[in-house]
Amino acid sequence: MDYQSIINEIAQEVSPLLVSGKVADYIPALAGVNPNQFAMTLTLFDGTQFSVGQADKLFSIQSISKVFTFTLALKFYRSALYQRIGIEPSGNSFNSIVQLEYEHGKPRNPFINAGAINITDSLINYYGADEHATEEILEFIRLLADDGSIDRDCVVALSEMEHGFRNLSLANLMKSFDNLDNPVEDVVNTYFRHCAIEMNTKMLSRAMLYLANDGLDPITGIKHISESQSKRINAVMLTCGHYDASGEFAFNVGLPGKSGVGGGIVAVVPNLMSISVWSPGLNENGNSLAGTKALELFTTKTGLSIF
Amino acid sequence: MDYQSIINEIAQEVSPLLVSGKVADYIPALAGVNPNQFAMTLTLFDGTQFSVGQADKLFSIQSISKVFTFTLALKFYRSALYQRIGIEPSGNSFNSIVQLEYEHGKPRNPFINAGAINITDSLINYYGADEHATEEILEFIRLLADDGSIDRDCVVALSEMEHGFRNLSLANLMKSFDNLDNPVEDVVNTYFRHCAIEMNTKMLSRAMLYLANDGLDPITGIKHISESQSKRINAVMLTCGHYDASGEFAFNVGLPGKSGVGGGIVAVVPNLMSISVWSPGLNENGNSLAGTKALELFTTKTGLSIF
Amino acid sequence: MDYQSIINEIAQEVSPLLVSGKVADYIPALAGVNPNQFAMTLTLFDGTQFSVGQADKLFSIQSISKVFTFTLALKFYRSALYQRIGIEPSGNSFNSIVQLEYEHGKPRNPFINAGAINITDSLINYYGADEHATEEILEFIRLLADDGSIDRDCVVALSEMEHGFRNLSLANLMKSFDNLDNPVEDVVNTYFRHCAIEMNTKMLSRAMLYLANDGLDPITGIKHISESQSKRINAVMLTCGHYDASGEFAFNVGLPGKSGVGGGIVAVVPNLMSISVWSPGLNENGNSLAGTKALELFTTKTGLSIF
Amino acid sequence: MDYQSIINEIAQEVSPLLVSGKVADYIPALAGVNPNQFAMTLTLFDGTQFSVGQADKLFSIQSISKVFTFTLALKFYRSALYQRIGIEPSGNSFNSIVQLEYEHGKPRNPFINAGAINITDSLINYYGADEHATEEILEFIRLLADDGSIDRDCVVALSEMEHGFRNLSLANLMKSFDNLDNPVEDVVNTYFRHCAIEMNTKMLSRAMLYLANDGLDPITGIKHISESQSKRINAVMLTCGHYDASGEFAFNVGLPGKSGVGGGIVAVVPNLMSISVWSPGLNENGNSLAGTKALELFTTKTGLSIF
Repeated sequence: MDYQSIINEIAQEVSPLLVSGKVADYIPALAGVNPNQFAMTLTLFDGTQFSVGQADKLFSIQSISKVFTFTLALKFYRSALYQRIGIEPSGNSFNSIVQLEYEHGKPRNPFINAGAINITDSLINYYGADEHATEEILEFIRLLADDGSIDRDCVVALSEMEHGFRNLSLANLMKSFDNLDNPVEDVVNTYFRHCAIEMNTKMLSRAMLYLANDGLDPITGIKHISESQSKRINAVMLTCGHYDASGEFAFNVGLPGKSGVGGGIVAVVPNLMSISVWSPGLNENGNSLAGTKALELFTTKTGLSIF
Repeated sequence: MDYQSIINEIAQEVSPLLVSGKVADYIPALAGVNPNQFAMTLTLFDGTQFSVGQADKLFSIQSISKVFTFTLALKFYRSALYQRIGIEPSGNSFNSIVQLEYEHGKPRNPFINAGAINITDSLINYYGADEHATEEILEFIRLLADDGSIDRDCVVALSEMEHGFRNLSLANLMKSFDNLDNPVEDVVNTYFRHCAIEMNTKMLSRAMLYLANDGLDPITGIKHISESQSKRINAVMLTCGHYDASGEFAFNVGLPGKSGVGGGIVAVVPNLMSISVWSPGLNENGNSLAGTKALELFTTKTGLSIF
Repeated sequence: MDYQSIINEIAQEVSPLLVSGKVADYIPALAGVNPNQFAMTLTLFDGTQFSVGQADKLFSIQSISKVFTFTLALKFYRSALYQRIGIEPSGNSFNSIVQLEYEHGKPRNPFINAGAINITDSLINYYGADEHATEEILEFIRLLADDGSIDRDCVVALSEMEHGFRNLSLANLMKSFDNLDNPVEDVVNTYFRHCAIEMNTKMLSRAMLYLANDGLDPITGIKHISESQSKRINAVMLTCGHYDASGEFAFNVGLPGKSGVGGGIVAVVPNLMSISVWSPGLNENGNSLAGTKALELFTTKTGLSIF
Repeated sequence: MDYQSIINEIAQEVSPLLVSGKVADYIPALAGVNPNQFAMTLTLFDGTQFSVGQADKLFSIQSISKVFTFTLALKFYRSALYQRIGIEPSGNSFNSIVQLEYEHGKPRNPFINAGAINITDSLINYYGADEHATEEILEFIRLLADDGSIDRDCVVALSEMEHGFRNLSLANLMKSFDNLDNPVEDVVNTYFRHCAIEMNTKMLSRAMLYLANDGLDPITGIKHISESQSKRINAVMLTCGHYDASGEFAFNVGLPGKSGVGGGIVAVVPNLMSISVWSPGLNENGNSLAGTKALELFTTKTGLSIF
């Protein structure tokens, strides 16, 4: 298939949508981003990349980081991880606090905020200290993307901490149920720090390759996780990767993926390629408006939906 | 692949589980089923079937019927259907009534009871009368399975109606929000009647073939629904097909599927085959215990997970 | 105190509010009532009545009937009644279905709809048949008001049944938890029938006298219930008598009372008098706007709040 | 009435209950209290006190402090206070976080934890700093009790802060909805500090006298709040003063009152006296078991229920 032509077409087709999205404004440091931007990158197993748009422009990966922290936690704790966290979808955000209370502080999955905070706590346990965990998570993402230049935007992390009351509420609620081991502020700070990592679509697409290839990086040959763990992360991305629009994403796009409020989305076509798209304007569910549409066009044009 | 050997192996490996499940007992007519039964059938696009166990034994398809009614409603109403029903996962059953209230009577997806009742209502609208809808749904399933002998078990349908207070509660709640057009009793009766259809794994596996093949029955050549509709039904099966264990099923099995409390499960391997498995003993989430395990073993042994 | 002058003053002071209320419109038969009406009656222990406004005009007592059915059920079942019903406030109406689910079908108190339906069910048990219960409830109210002319408005009862889906939903939910003994339709029909009883403020004020006097009717000398039961009904009126504005009513008026969506309110000043007020325009919480204000003015002018 | 004999009788009658209660154990500093203790004090308007049991023994007033902080906030902010807080009952504790979320961070009343934390925040606003607020609240309680010796137990306050994750969760949730002005830790610390004030039943009974007398201390002649404010605090105590057993307390005791997990309860008989009772063993709802029974016996024996 002529992937370059396809993504060029897509870039044109979504361009009218760029102005309709709404940049995340609850984090002041993100509110100033120009919504009129778009990038998309495909990465094949031999490392070939096809890009369109501002594919070198760094942006805040935000919740996409949850894929990488879940990978690490699954690698270290295996099925023991499910004593503290579930893998079921959680419904709307009103529901997510209701369910956290109803289910005695056990988050429903690793991709809602409570779940990712809980995963972060388990990584602090593993690494022994929050600074250490912060560095190791960053190192792991550099390894996945094969790019040592990746770093955090400290202004964004601080800005999130100053407005992170809802996350502090969730973390304290888990702690009240004895399902958080480290001090709440340390855990939430660490969580915000890895949300504030900056990457572009080339880096993100490259970093996701292991999930398209059963846990094995086809370029470096590093086996990050087992085949079964890799399939499971993909399954959770499919069922829970897009807030309360996960069903819709599965329905319209049909690929395992994960979005972030910075406007990035990652996705994999199992056994074939990994994809990243970025456009900062969000739809009402907090997912990139043009980015979601671009992925929908991609599976429609290529027939590469997993269904 | 030697499918026959694989399913023979599976049948042996799950046999110790048969006694651990618990037959659905809230419907008296189902409570008497012997749990010590198992069957599995695979159907390829040329019609070849591989079966093991009691593959000719009829059982109550229960919620599996929701796949077929959703298919009909999607065919008739297309995207207009989403004005009355969502496609997002719904969380636990406590949640499902909370969310129905919170979301003003709009069910979250076609596979929770409220959603399937709502779909039934739309089909009564289409066919003009509940008896007519009941017959046409049955005819459609006969067509899908290419088997005119399929019929309902009226004793089960009556038994369900006598104990269907929770479903009547959901239906009345939707009606109070003006999201149900026909009389509550008629709709719920029709719903229970198609839940009480009896099939065996050969019939069910055969009937699901269209969803493995983009809406086209590869044997009869009938195009039941469009490719896009077919992919979407598969997506909803993956995200919402197994009550509050949908994430776990995606995680462990990795195929779009739908279970019923009669102990049946259907699943598809896109572009390759359709599967049905049956064992009446249920796990704590209401899905067939041995059946779920059999499908997990199947994707492990064959590598045919969509992830 | 010169009660007549006080209520005359009140009638004048609330008259500008009459137009601001909103007549209940979910029951077609009630929607046509002219909101520009007001009546208030006080009844002393010797039978003396002070009235102002349209005190002879009959209106639908609606939820005020719950006071009388609770009285009967408490009389017959005593503390055994609390196995099926609670006496705690229930929060907003979103909450009331959430809590009914959370608390396994046990309504929080006799004055929310689920509770009053449940009480009705217990009275059908006691009397043996729904028609019989309907008649006996009416007879009891006639006895309390010492007025054999009191009757039901069948048009209103039918109209409610035709739009009573939410109540049918609650009743079915209780039935699914085995907390309703009789057929749902019979119970809800009986409930609607006693809601549709018509009385005026003179009758209602007279009927409430027993609750101002520890269960004993000071005029006829009939001991309807014990002193302790009487105090308890007053306590439940105070904590739960005005939907999600019960706290506000206690706060602003400071008397045990119960309102209905027909615009009526009853209240008692323990050891002194009973009161009824009526004005069909409702506030946002479903309580009579001018009626609530009239009672607030009454306790302010007389200092007769129980606090 | 011979109050001394009555309370002597009560002390004897409740003594078998002392061992059945369960001392609050979630605060380590309180867990060690001997449950086998009881005290009760009545205070008349001329200052006469009747006491029985360990009426000089200091205990942690805990949630009883909410009555005093609500009094201060109502005095300073009057009805403006209701922009940030409601006055409706809240149901069970599962509900209280659900409702805080559902109602966008506005607590339902000043006596649930979220409400008292919110009230504390408003007092920090008024006094300008949390240390200042802490001191002024203590001074106000000394003034009410006419006893300068009253002080806080810093060990208890620290102990609560170390285990106060649920309260921190509630406070952060309010903050995320912009309904908390000061830093979360400062507010919750201040809240815990006034919960940790130590008093005995003589002091508490004396301190409550103003609420039995329309806001005016009958001994010192100080007018703390208006008559209307006083009645309203009593109304909120009646509807919301005893966690999810407020309806039951109104039902069984019939007096406005407030309990604390330290085992203390305060109550008022309007226009006659104020009461305090103490026994550290709690019932399942977190209210003093013997204390609640003692008050029930008191209104039964004296007929002094407000109903």
